[in-house]
Amino acid sequence: MTSLAPALPVTRRDLTALFAPSSIAIVGASNDPAKYGNWLAVRALRDADTRPAYLINKTRSTILGHPARPALTDLGGPVDLAVIAVPAAGFDEAVEDAITSGVKAIVAITAGLGESGADGLARQNALVARLREADIAMLGPNCLGVLDNTTGLDATVNEFRPGSVSIISQSGNVAIDLAEHFSEQGLGVARFASLGNCADLDVADLIDSCVDHEGTEAIAVYCEGFKDGRKFARAAARAADAGKPVVLLSVGRGAASTRGAASHTGSLVTSNVVLEAVCEATGTELVSSPFEMANLLQVLVRTRPPAGSRVAVPADGGGHASLASDSLEEAGLRVEEFSADLAERVAGELPPTAAVSNPIDVAGGGEQDITCFARVAQRLIESPETDAVLMTGYFGGYGDYDPAVVSGEIQVGRDIAALVAESDASFIAQTMFPDSAAAQALRDSGIAVYRNVEHATWALSRLLVRAEVTSHPLPVLPEPAAPLAETGYWPARRALTAAGIPFVPAAEVATIGELENAVADLQFPLVLKVLGDEHKSDNGGVILNITDHTALVAAWDDVQARLAPPVCSIEEMADLSGAVELIIGVRRDPTFGPIVLVGIGGVYTELLKDTRCALGPITADQARELLQSLRGSALLTGFRGKPAVNIAAAAELVATLSNYAAEHPEIGEIECNPIAVTPTIAVALDARIILDH
Amino acid sequence: MTSLAPALPVTRRDLTALFAPSSIAIVGASNDPAKYGNWLAVRALRDADTRPAYLINKTRSTILGHPARPALTDLGGPVDLAVIAVPAAGFDEAVEDAITSGVKAIVAITAGLGESGADGLARQNALVARLREADIAMLGPNCLGVLDNTTGLDATVNEFRPGSVSIISQSGNVAIDLAEHFSEQGLGVARFASLGNCADLDVADLIDSCVDHEGTEAIAVYCEGFKDGRKFARAAARAADAGKPVVLLSVGRGAASTRGAASHTGSLVTSNVVLEAVCEATGTELVSSPFEMANLLQVLVRTRPPAGSRVAVPADGGGHASLASDSLEEAGLRVEEFSADLAERVAGELPPTAAVSNPIDVAGGGEQDITCFARVAQRLIESPETDAVLMTGYFGGYGDYDPAVVSGEIQVGRDIAALVAESDASFIAQTMFPDSAAAQALRDSGIAVYRNVEHATWALSRLLVRAEVTSHPLPVLPEPAAPLAETGYWPARRALTAAGIPFVPAAEVATIGELENAVADLQFPLVLKVLGDEHKSDNGGVILNITDHTALVAAWDDVQARLAPPVCSIEEMADLSGAVELIIGVRRDPTFGPIVLVGIGGVYTELLKDTRCALGPITADQARELLQSLRGSALLTGFRGKPAVNIAAAAELVATLSNYAAEHPEIGEIECNPIAVTPTIAVALDARIILDH
Repeated sequence: MTSLAPALPVTRRDLTALFAPSSIAIVGASNDPAKYGNWLAVRALRDADTRPAYLINKTRSTILGHPARPALTDLGGPVDLAVIAVPAAGFDEAVEDAITSGVKAIVAITAGLGESGADGLARQNALVARLREADIAMLGPNCLGVLDNTTGLDATVNEFRPGSVSIISQSGNVAIDLAEHFSEQGLGVARFASLGNCADLDVADLIDSCVDHEGTEAIAVYCEGFKDGRKFARAAARAADAGKPVVLLSVGRGAASTRGAASHTGSLVTSNVVLEAVCEATGTELVSSPFEMANLLQVLVRTRPPAGSRVAVPADGGGHASLASDSLEEAGLRVEEFSADLAERVAGELPPTAAVSNPIDVAGGGEQDITCFARVAQRLIESPETDAVLMTGYFGGYGDYDPAVVSGEIQVGRDIAALVAESDASFIAQTMFPDSAAAQALRDSGIAVYRNVEHATWALSRLLVRAEVTSHPLPVLPEPAAPLAETGYWPARRALTAAGIPFVPAAEVATIGELENAVADLQFPLVLKVLGDEHKSDNGGVILNITDHTALVAAWDDVQARLAPPVCSIEEMADLSGAVELIIGVRRDPTFGPIVLVGIGGVYTELLKDTRCALGPITADQARELLQSLRGSALLTGFRGKPAVNIAAAAELVATLSNYAAEHPEIGEIECNPIAVTPTIAVALDARIILDH
Repeated sequence: MTSLAPALPVTRRDLTALFAPSSIAIVGASNDPAKYGNWLAVRALRDADTRPAYLINKTRSTILGHPARPALTDLGGPVDLAVIAVPAAGFDEAVEDAITSGVKAIVAITAGLGESGADGLARQNALVARLREADIAMLGPNCLGVLDNTTGLDATVNEFRPGSVSIISQSGNVAIDLAEHFSEQGLGVARFASLGNCADLDVADLIDSCVDHEGTEAIAVYCEGFKDGRKFARAAARAADAGKPVVLLSVGRGAASTRGAASHTGSLVTSNVVLEAVCEATGTELVSSPFEMANLLQVLVRTRPPAGSRVAVPADGGGHASLASDSLEEAGLRVEEFSADLAERVAGELPPTAAVSNPIDVAGGGEQDITCFARVAQRLIESPETDAVLMTGYFGGYGDYDPAVVSGEIQVGRDIAALVAESDASFIAQTMFPDSAAAQALRDSGIAVYRNVEHATWALSRLLVRAEVTSHPLPVLPEPAAPLAETGYWPARRALTAAGIPFVPAAEVATIGELENAVADLQFPLVLKVLGDEHKSDNGGVILNITDHTALVAAWDDVQARLAPPVCSIEEMADLSGAVELIIGVRRDPTFGPIVLVGIGGVYTELLKDTRCALGPITADQARELLQSLRGSALLTGFRGKPAVNIAAAAELVATLSNYAAEHPEIGEIECNPIAVTPTIAVALDARIILDH
């Protein structure tokens, strides 16, 4: 990469006044308990001892028994944060008052602006320009407020139990859904920010702010569409670098949800394959439901990533032992038999009927002595044979049988957590009794606990993948090159040849004279292609295997007589014995920019959809990883006794194409289908460029 | 199929005395509250008013303040059901006493018999023989008891809330796990039977009994291994025919769980692919966790199967609308935009800001008037445009905002259920508030309610697949034919040719004289194959494309000089242009018998594992369905302009092979790899038979 990223704001917004304001004003405070301005005022007043709260109401001098002023400009002094909950008709005036009175940040609850049509959008844009001039950050409009449990700020209407996950959401109900799951899984919220229309502050600004926020350990994002995809990518990558994983829940995997989201906030919904590529490039975890999000956050916040895939399974009952083992192996983890030595150590802690290899069945050991779970856990944690431990089944339920056991069971939970904390162990638990005191003790002391084993193994496998992934620097978009004027086969070929893509030797020929000249530099056998027809091979417009001059002239005469093409291409016929055909291409996503695609060609592409994508541009190293991650990648490395093909050359070609596409934002799609990769070379056999409409 | 199924008991066991005994005896009743004999006695005494309960203890005359007798033979009269919970040493005597005293059924809690090694197994087998002679059914040993909520029988130690699902389980803890999920989802238990060692009664006997049980609507089976797979298959298929779906949770999908299960009850664990084939053949639903089982049972018990895949999604909030739509489309269901007419009808029930096509966002309609959910539901149910309705999101939570809404919300739940009951609608719900009174009202009146939308859509899609599946009569095993004596290529070829499998013309030749004779009946080009070497083509033992007599003699001399084979095969070289190669085979599972495999050959088999299996033998119709369900099936129907191949001929060949394998139980594996299918014929190019060891 020789050029720099296009000029974009690299200074991050200071959102202190949004999340930790020293004072707050509720504009549109109301006595009507059915109104948002009422709920916000109640909460602001509740915290008024520590954070002065001012109420603004155009007509009433008293709200909720407290004095109110007609406008922010009547307060006689500045406030940090103005929460505006007036009807749309009064919004502009409220914003102007905020600017005049010197507020530092605005939360705009008001709906009926940018999401309501062209007029509303124009109004919204004009106000944002005014606010940016005044250096005032605005959340919303059309949002549900903001909360920061680490600063005691509560300018929203729902309850969020304190914790270390920050929620940034474009939907209030999805945030509530998530908070319900958090409560069930013992997680809590550091900050909550409702995105609304993202007129000023967008999801990237809020992620950036949470990365710098000490109280945030992980960031949960629900977003229906990204206005500036690369800005999101930079913020998400920065969060990953800082060890504060972003978990993204998005929509638009199908056509119906695109319709749904478009009518919801007027934002564009990106497709899932693009999002997968973006998430992979930025270390972002993509999930598809609030439940998955909470499940994943539990391990991200609580569990050390396993160093490898060998999982030890202590269970109470052979049934749960087997179910857990099956589930782990299905998730790509391994449940390997223990060495005789480890099995013996485990056996030393359990009754003789126990199964002591892997999985372990304590077989009544829990009823006899509940401490066996901690002792077995210790044996497993101290063994170099295990990368992670999944405790599964009945633990948490012994107290139900015998109330005398309850306190012992809680202590065992704490002892296990202490063992895990003191070691470098990766340990998670599944229990049939997630609401038991013992399960609670495990969670409170930092162990991830799941109700169902499939969710525990899914979370553990995601954690392992996250730990094992090779990260690459986030791709940077180069400065645009001079735009391509012409498309068509030969213009595309010439442009790509100049960019360094190897093609088979060929020439563009319009007359028999040009043909005669061209063949002097080419080696038989040759291929004659009629140009200007997408279905050229179906129409007999491609003549293969022309072995000598006589045949060449005959072929020329034939196509002239049949098709009278304005121009043809005469090309050397590549020896494709031992070659694997690939499809490679780049599509420009309107939000995220170039997305690179590679796939094995022919039936693999069309029938089996065996393709992989990445956020472009990509390096040759990344291209090689993409190619190797194809389901049919064995075809490249010497399948069924064939020699391996030159993957490095193919990867170089992909990287070159991806850079070319990145330098040409006017290109909507660019594709070489196929390229042929032999044991020695990779060469393009076709090229196609479609400009963005 | 010309022969009948092998003689197997077709009379089903009468288990009245097991599930509805008129009297019960606890053998091994105990005063020690840590013992099973104590818990059982407590429960038996609790119900003694309606079902006389007798306590048996060898040494004490009083147990739990009630008189006890030393042995069943001391009771002075017969009891229906004896529950035996004595130590293993006293088990034989207790069984003999049961026989002598005329009990009709036994539940054997006692452990340490069949599962403890060869001696225990011999003892167990001998006792079963005695019991069968006396016509006494036994559950267990090594089991956790039996319960029937429809007859008030409680001879186990856990709580099972009453309901319409019967649980048959090989693990006590898994049954408890399942019962916990049932409670959360508002389901309950009709019968519970713990399988234990299945010495006498097995899972098939218990399924059969539940099919005949009026109080059972669906049957949940947890089973780690099947002793008589075909007996299970017959019982499961009978259950499906009776409209009482069997949902099977099994283990053994990976190597580790096989080890786990083997050390657990000593039963064999079958592999998942075999189970999938068995479940498909018998209308059994295979699941992989207790949670999945409960999720599926909810729709099986409550929800009418949708007539098609078009789902209407009423939601409160665009976020949940989009999440549900994505999830439905990922599950293979469709969320199609409504007609203008239906959208208008929906709009008539909602505020102007609502999204009224599909998905629907009521957009505050719930807060304004909670009855909008019932009114929208009615519009959707009465429309011919929808096959199912998934209500998703906030419903159930409105009462939290405003307590005055609670009763209205409950009424709306009931109204929706009434609408569904009166129509032929398929309706399910997801709510963030599954424990709310409104969610409870939905469930109580027969609507399936899920906490997470992905589980709702998964269950709905399973229900749709179940409704759409083409069922075939359960395959019947033919009488065994005379066993095959020889294997090897030519014996296999001759046996299969005799069975009706077409091969390319060929001859087995050991001398140049035999070769000369053979070629008189064959057409050039020919192939010469050296036999007796599995790696013949790697060693130059296959000479292709022999076009004339001179080349034939040269090829013969060459292989004689190089390899001196005892015997060769001379074959016509099939014209494979336009042919698709398939792999077909049959593996005999030790429990379930022949399992038929089909797959597209070559890289598809080896690299992409594109194969499908079915419980054999199968008909040509079934074979065609299997072939058409391959991922690469488009190759058969004319891919990329090639002509379609003769699928009917291929299907006939598969059916013939599967019947041959079914008639030869001595065959462990039989395979034709490849067969070539051209537009006109299907012909085998190779054959391999491996006898069962």
